[in-house]
Formats: sequence, structure tokens, C-alpha cells
Amino acid sequence: MGERTNRAFRLRQRPEGALADGDLELVSEEVPELRDGQALVRNKLLSLDPTNRIWMSDIRGYMPPVPIDAVMRGLGIGEVVESRRDDMPLGATVNGFVGWQELCLADDSQLEAPLTVLPDPLPGPESAFLGALGHTGVTAYIGIDLAEVSDGDTIVVSAACGAVGSVAGQIAKQRGARVVGIAGGPEKCEHAVSVLGFDACVDHRTGDWRDQLDRATPDGIDVDFENVGGPIMDHVLGRLNIGARISLCGMIAEYNTYNEGGEHAGALTNIGQLIMQRATIKGFLVLDFGHRFGEAIEYLGGLLAEGRLHYDETIVDGGIEAAPDALAELFDGRNMGKLLVRVAE
Amino acid sequence: MGERTNRAFRLRQRPEGALADGDLELVSEEVPELRDGQALVRNKLLSLDPTNRIWMSDIRGYMPPVPIDAVMRGLGIGEVVESRRDDMPLGATVNGFVGWQELCLADDSQLEAPLTVLPDPLPGPESAFLGALGHTGVTAYIGIDLAEVSDGDTIVVSAACGAVGSVAGQIAKQRGARVVGIAGGPEKCEHAVSVLGFDACVDHRTGDWRDQLDRATPDGIDVDFENVGGPIMDHVLGRLNIGARISLCGMIAEYNTYNEGGEHAGALTNIGQLIMQRATIKGFLVLDFGHRFGEAIEYLGGLLAEGRLHYDETIVDGGIEAAPDALAELFDGRNMGKLLVRVAE
Repeated sequence: MGERTNRAFRLRQRPEGALADGDLELVSEEVPELRDGQALVRNKLLSLDPTNRIWMSDIRGYMPPVPIDAVMRGLGIGEVVESRRDDMPLGATVNGFVGWQELCLADDSQLEAPLTVLPDPLPGPESAFLGALGHTGVTAYIGIDLAEVSDGDTIVVSAACGAVGSVAGQIAKQRGARVVGIAGGPEKCEHAVSVLGFDACVDHRTGDWRDQLDRATPDGIDVDFENVGGPIMDHVLGRLNIGARISLCGMIAEYNTYNEGGEHAGALTNIGQLIMQRATIKGFLVLDFGHRFGEAIEYLGGLLAEGRLHYDETIVDGGIEAAPDALAELFDGRNMGKLLVRVAE
Repeated sequence: MGERTNRAFRLRQRPEGALADGDLELVSEEVPELRDGQALVRNKLLSLDPTNRIWMSDIRGYMPPVPIDAVMRGLGIGEVVESRRDDMPLGATVNGFVGWQELCLADDSQLEAPLTVLPDPLPGPESAFLGALGHTGVTAYIGIDLAEVSDGDTIVVSAACGAVGSVAGQIAKQRGARVVGIAGGPEKCEHAVSVLGFDACVDHRTGDWRDQLDRATPDGIDVDFENVGGPIMDHVLGRLNIGARISLCGMIAEYNTYNEGGEHAGALTNIGQLIMQRATIKGFLVLDFGHRFGEAIEYLGGLLAEGRLHYDETIVDGGIEAAPDALAELFDGRNMGKLLVRVAE
């Protein structure tokens, strides 16, 4: 295929449960000649996030669902390979909603949010701008800040080795908290403690994870950085201390149940504990904190430069066609840290 | 029985589901001679509150459960009929944890919290100090304040004709909000609109209450003053606007399921909407706001004096033995406004 053939995943039907064959279709499409005000971006890295699955469902989300037959929405980084707009020069590295495709036509009318041009030269590895120094790192920073984590708090972080959880736990350690992770499998738990520096980590795939979590939080739980929802969150709710704060960042346990019908995977029975413990849940989206990205990236970049922030990423090679399987990997919890698909070198 | 015989409900076993025969026993007990520092209170009015049911269960509540064989815990108002303590003179009217009994030995060592002596003469009817000018009125005031209800907000108030909800909705109206009640039965809904001044009220006993609530909140919901939990709260969560605030005051729909085993009546599936809408739930207990009782009662007393606060109460006559059935009435939603049992004239 030629230089100007785009391969793109279009959403043909809304998944029932996990993403399955037939939901997305990989199509080849010619890119028209650019008009003034357009640039053509060759996508290099695609960011896989739990929210990709949310966007596929026709639910009341924070953005409209991806329309049927539209290119699947996704964040990523690419390089400008043709340009007829002054703010995106040839060769610039850009970041934003590039979509699940090889080539992105950067034309503001087509995008929910404009792409942003990253500094040249980049102050760190490209991939970090989709992770620790990108939206997931800033999400971690904001969530810890909203929960007012401070010295002596016990904080639980679910999806502890995920892109957000791993950074959130490390920031909480910097603030003097006792950090207890929850992760799937012994390797991740070992990693959370020995590499990320968590005080403890509980494997939710063991039969007695509830007992383990109780033992790891002998003084109760002051803060929950919640990424998962479902039975894990429900058990944490039962161990909150008076005045506890929950930063509600994600509920990945339930996203695959949207549009599925039948029983809801994430039903919570312990919300009443919020009354008993005078606790607060704050739902948040990093999208609302554009004004704090600079502060967050300065802080995270500082930690990184001082060697006080460990940063994991899993990069799936295999081109754009790897994206659907990579999403499944994210929901199965097979990745360590930030999950990316390399679309092109 | 003599002047110094007390009749008291002792908790013999923890209810499974709704309170049933055999859970409480009414016993007659002689009251010993007073020692220095004790006073004897003849209970006049007993306050029936959803939290009575919480206190019967061995759950992680905000107070320890009532011990087996102890007198059932309850708030009320009584008169000092014997005294060997200077701070509680004969004839004084006192307020606090008087228990489900006829006579209360006011001895600080026996009480979770000391009784307080009310002003003499009382600036309003005695019963109001267990309702609109008591803990339920202050609960309403605090919950509206925590949710920062302001002009133009749409607020939903569940248990709209209950002791707390009825006052909360009226305070919200004073703040300029559009107030939509949820109540059980057409009489209550009519009362909420025509007497309490709510803008609308939805009968949750009708088959299409969800559609009705949707129509009554065409611009979504900015604030939820939540007293009920369960499917009602879950539906409200699905209609929150961006930045919505939930004051979580009570979850009466689930209290009868404590200790019951089996499926939880109040499981919530829509907590994920807190993320999508960047919404906050604050659980609260009026017990934490002792320092604001003065301010709240001054405000509520002012509204009452100006005729801008309608105050309902249901007083059950029949003596202390009426308390268990009165609790059932509360959970069935048969009462209008504050529910009290008259223990003695």
C-alpha cells in the first residue's frame, strides 16, 4: 500500500461484554490531498487505556460514544509527515486523539480535542509522554492530591502495577503514607513491593485476598485510590477509617459489562460505610485538570530525573492490527505499567 | 407498678431482616435508690429513627451495636423526677439518649453521651426538639450545606416527607433550588408539593417512577440529598450532572438487610457515574457537627417563626410498648414527618 493509504479500525458494532471479532473492522482508505489548515500525522505509539472500552459503549459517559462506523478513538503520539498548517511543522511530534489508525488527518473539525505539539527536543523518551509524564501520570498526581494524602495515612491502590496505580502509589510514598497495593498475580505483587517501593501488595487472585488485605491494613484505610471497582472496592469500603477519602479514578471491573445486560459485575453493597465513617468519594477525570498538567509534569519529571520514580511500560509491537488484542491484555491485567502499541517506528 | 418500677425494652437477639417478635423483650425492673451524681428521668417522647435499626445489628457502624441484653438505645425527651446532681434539677426537661424505657437513670457512666438540659421555658413545642429544631432538623441543615446547594440547582430529596427530607427540601427551596422529592404514595407526594412547597414529587411506588423522575428533572440532577439508597439512589446516580454533589445521609432501604444474609437490597451499579460526571459523595453524621447546632437551630427557628418552615410530626400514643411497631411504621414509610412515641404525658 502507498504512502497515503491509511489503515484504520472502524467501530462496526458496540461490544457486548469484552471486545470481540466483528466489533471493529480494519479498513484501508486513501487519504485525500491536504487542504489548507490540515496536517497528516503518521501515528507511532497508541495508548491503550481502560476508557477505550467505555467509549465503545452507548452509555452516559464523559464523552459521546464513538459513533458506529467511525474510526476508534484513542490517544497516541505521531509525527507530522505532511503539513499545510503553520502550527504543525513537518517532523513535529504531536500528542492527542490520533485514533486507532496509521495516519491521522489533523484537522480540528474532526477531533474532539486538537493535537498538541510536543517540545523539540523531547526532555524524555517519547513513550513517557503517554505515561508517567502524560495523561496517566497526571491522573495519578491529581487523584493523590484530591485525596489529600499525607504523612501517616494508610492508602490502598488498586491496579497497583497499572499505568496510573504504579505512579499514584509512588507519589503517596513521597508524601509519607503507608502504601498497600492490590494487583493480580505474585509477580506484580513482588514488583510493587521490591521495585515500586510499596509497603505491601495483595494478590486479588488468591482465595484469601480479603484476609490478606485486612492484615496489610491493621489500622484501617484512610485513602483509597480506586481504579477497579467491584468486589475489591466493596471490601475496601468496609475498612475505611473515619474521615476517609476515595479518589475514584476508574472502575475497570465493570467496563466490560456495559451493554451486556444481566447482572452487573461491579455492584457495591458497602456504600453505607461512607455514612458510618463520614467518608467522601470524589470521582474525577484528568481532562478537567488541563490547568495543572504543567505543575504535575514538572513534579513527575523531577522525581524521574532524581531516580525516585520507577516507570514501567509494556510496548506491543505488531502495528495497528495489534490494538484490539492489546486492549484485551489490559482488561486481563497481563501488562505491567503503561500499555502501548507501536504503530510505526 | 410503683413509681420506681421501670419498663424497658432489652435487646435479646439481633434482628434478621425487619425487627420481629423475640428480638426485644419488655421487662419490668426496680430502680435502685439514687446515688450522688445520678438523676432519674421520666421519659416523655421517644424519637424513632432509621438508625435505631442500625444499632441493633452487629455491623461496623458509627457507634457500637447495642449489646445483647442491654436496654435498646434511643433518643428522646424526658423530665427529671428525682435528682442528686446539681446540673439536672427536679423538673428540668432533658434531651438525649434516654433509651427505649420509661425511666432513665441519668448517670454519665451508663451513657454514650450525656443528656442535655433544655432551656426553661422552651422556645417551642417539646416535640420540635426531637425534630425540626433537633437532630433531624440539624441533619437536614448540615446536609444541604455540605452539598453547597445554590440558586438554580436541581436537587432530589428522597424520603421527601420524612423528618429529615421534609426539612432539607424546604431549606433547599430557601436557597433557590428546584426541589424534586421522592416519596411513597400519592398522599405524600401531594403533601410535598402543596404543603412543603417542593416543585415536584415522584411516587416510587408507581411502576414508572423512573420515567417520572426523568421528566421531573429535565435538566439533570445537581444535588442528591440521599436518605434511602438502593434502586432509587442508583437511578439518581444515572442522572447526575457534571460536578454533582451527593449528601449521603441515610440508606434506609438497606438497614433491614443487615445480618440477613443473601442478596443485598441496596447494591448500587451506577457508582461509575461519579467518574463520568466528576461527582462527589459525602457521607456525614450530625454527631460530628455539635459545634454547628446553635447556628442550625437559630436558622431553623427563624424560618419556623416566620412561617416559612412547615413541620410535620406523627406521634404514636400507647406508651413505651408502642416503640417496636412504630419502628416498623418508619420502615414501611407509614409516618408523615418526624415519628415519635409518647411514653408519658
